[in-house]
Amino acid sequence: MSEISAKMVADLRKATGAGLMDCKRALQDADGYVDEATKALRAKGLADAGKRAGRDANEGIVDSYIHMGGRVGVLIEVNCETDFVARNDDFKEFVHDVALHIAAMKPQYVSADDVPEEIRAAERDVFTAQSQDIPEVAREKAIEGRLAKRLKEFALLDQEFVKDVGEKSPRTIEDLRVEAAAKLGENVAIRRFSVFELGG
Amino acid sequence: MSEISAKMVADLRKATGAGLMDCKRALQDADGYVDEATKALRAKGLADAGKRAGRDANEGIVDSYIHMGGRVGVLIEVNCETDFVARNDDFKEFVHDVALHIAAMKPQYVSADDVPEEIRAAERDVFTAQSQDIPEVAREKAIEGRLAKRLKEFALLDQEFVKDVGEKSPRTIEDLRVEAAAKLGENVAIRRFSVFELGG
Repeated sequence: MSEISAKMVADLRKATGAGLMDCKRALQDADGYVDEATKALRAKGLADAGKRAGRDANEGIVDSYIHMGGRVGVLIEVNCETDFVARNDDFKEFVHDVALHIAAMKPQYVSADDVPEEIRAAERDVFTAQSQDIPEVAREKAIEGRLAKRLKEFALLDQEFVKDVGEKSPRTIEDLRVEAAAKLGENVAIRRFSVFELGG
Repeated sequence: MSEISAKMVADLRKATGAGLMDCKRALQDADGYVDEATKALRAKGLADAGKRAGRDANEGIVDSYIHMGGRVGVLIEVNCETDFVARNDDFKEFVHDVALHIAAMKPQYVSADDVPEEIRAAERDVFTAQSQDIPEVAREKAIEGRLAKRLKEFALLDQEFVKDVGEKSPRTIEDLRVEAAAKLGENVAIRRFSVFELGG
């Protein structure tokens, strides 16, 4: 087994938000390969976040971000479980990063599930019209696939985090949320946001 | 005619936002009575604002206000006619005052006209039920009067400015808007706002 230095553990902890012992164990299991350890911890983070997702999140903060000297503005509410975490700097930084992302990328809904049925139907009609030359046996599946992809473009959680553009493995906002939840040990939920664009 | 000092003119200008010569003339016409001159200028401001109200207002700013350490947040868009006025400190101060007012008073619509028909109908039903002992000849008028009053409670423009509470002659947000328009010489319009209350 290769040597696991304290610095490697600290770096991994910083990158993933996982606990010290979890980071050490992941590095040992991955024989010192940082990428592999990171993947394993992210997978574990997702599993833990899944468990936490059912827990009540009624605390949190309302934050705002004003972009381009007042031409774009964002208001956002993010929930967590305790007032203690709501006042934590890592939580505040997560909220602020998401607000900044929204100002830049202007998603329309928090998740693809929030897209109203009439928009969903209109998008499906477009793809149906465009798919008439696909053999009938494969057509329905192709339409649903393109629709799912399209709905994700509207959805904040599915978007690639704007600060990660050009990175080797860019995170989605959902990845960011899971990371924050892992770091803070609480359920973290983006409840709602509002974007105003001047004259828009 | 009583003596009109430069200080009186300057004070009145500051209070009403009217032009220097308009202030001087108003004070002369009012024989030096500041209250009367103020009233005359406000009436004139309203008339001028009415003329300006038809002009296009596509510039402006999006501003925000976070209250109570992140438990309440407001996003607001206010329009004016030119980018020049949008960058003016008096304009910015007006926008910020209105955002602060919204955070404190939580109006639901910009004006009473924006209240949706179903809310209007529900309120009318309540007052109709409460008005059955009013003689029929006066009943309809009484109901409409109470309804109009109620709708104004929802409406930002009709609310008393929160910083003026306890003042001898408190201004409404509409008064504030007219003042800002007079001071800046442009149409000023509150286009929209959004209020998030934590867990609300």
